Amino acid sequence: MEIEVKFRVDFERVKRAIESIGARFVREEMQEDVYLSVPLPELLRVRRVDNLNRSFLTYKRIADPGRNEEFDEIEVEVSDFEKTLQILKRLGFKEDVRVRKKRLVYRLDRVTFELSEVEGLGAFLDIEVISDDVDEAKRKIWEMAGRIGLSEDDVEPRLYQELIKELEKRK
Amino acid sequence: MEIEVKFRVDFERVKRAIESIGARFVREEMQEDVYLSVPLPELLRVRRVDNLNRSFLTYKRIADPGRNEEFDEIEVEVSDFEKTLQILKRLGFKEDVRVRKKRLVYRLDRVTFELSEVEGLGAFLDIEVISDDVDEAKRKIWEMAGRIGLSEDDVEPRLYQELIKELEKRK
Repeated sequence: MEIEVKFRVDFERVKRAIESIGARFVREEMQEDVYLSVPLPELLRVRRVDNLNRSFLTYKRIADPGRNEEFDEIEVEVSDFEKTLQILKRLGFKEDVRVRKKRLVYRLDRVTFELSEVEGLGAFLDIEVISDDVDEAKRKIWEMAGRIGLSEDDVEPRLYQELIKELEKRK
Repeated sequence: MEIEVKFRVDFERVKRAIESIGARFVREEMQEDVYLSVPLPELLRVRRVDNLNRSFLTYKRIADPGRNEEFDEIEVEVSDFEKTLQILKRLGFKEDVRVRKKRLVYRLDRVTFELSEVEGLGAFLDIEVISDDVDEAKRKIWEMAGRIGLSEDDVEPRLYQELIKELEKRK
């Protein structure tokens, strides 16, 4: 199970805070995500990581809909982003939304920090732990959140694709 | 467009014939194909090539249903066979049939020869050309068929998954 909590953050301040607690920088990713029209609580995504020239097909099932912190995830790397999208479209799935972001990935012990600048939405930090013990994972996540100065008030429970959809509606 | 004609053959005789006309041996593959329950003329397959440790997700649309010689194909390599199957099953596709075969691949100019020993079904040769000129591709395929001693009588128009399904019905 993938357990993660998403926070709205100030990119530079949180970047310094993550580095100051000793998290190790892993990589930078320029991500383009296409979400296909699968009804919640399921998600179907094709991701291209432009700067690494890699692509992924990901299925997620949200275990706690609304809160969106617990995900049952299955992911494979694919050799071609566009062809994977084409296959899914031929099978009847429609393109729902595209999310583009610059993401810095850090790690400290078993905790992953994904600090993202999302096109049109601003900056977010996802703190993630892969574990089958949800309670222990959440304790770990909130301990880290506390150390970098984030609180319940900073949580953004909506999914990126929900935020993008709301943005497009307002236009 | 993928143009191919499938023949029922004697494995050893046809292997010698292909080699005698100067076709180049490309590789041997131990293939396990899982076809998902997509209605014809569409096909959805996940293939594991055991001996090469590679897997592929393939969508095909048969352009000449019944004859089954012209295919609009989209294929990507995937990093994990079982996970890819899992994703498709989560999306609602059911496993239809499994086809296991040993395949020798040869090439001569733009023509690919796929000589297969299919578990439960016997030996087959697929002669394949990738081209947007269907007529020219078929001329080339039949010229090669003639050179290795195969005729219209040897053609097997049914798909592997149809043959496996008929086999399972008879059991």
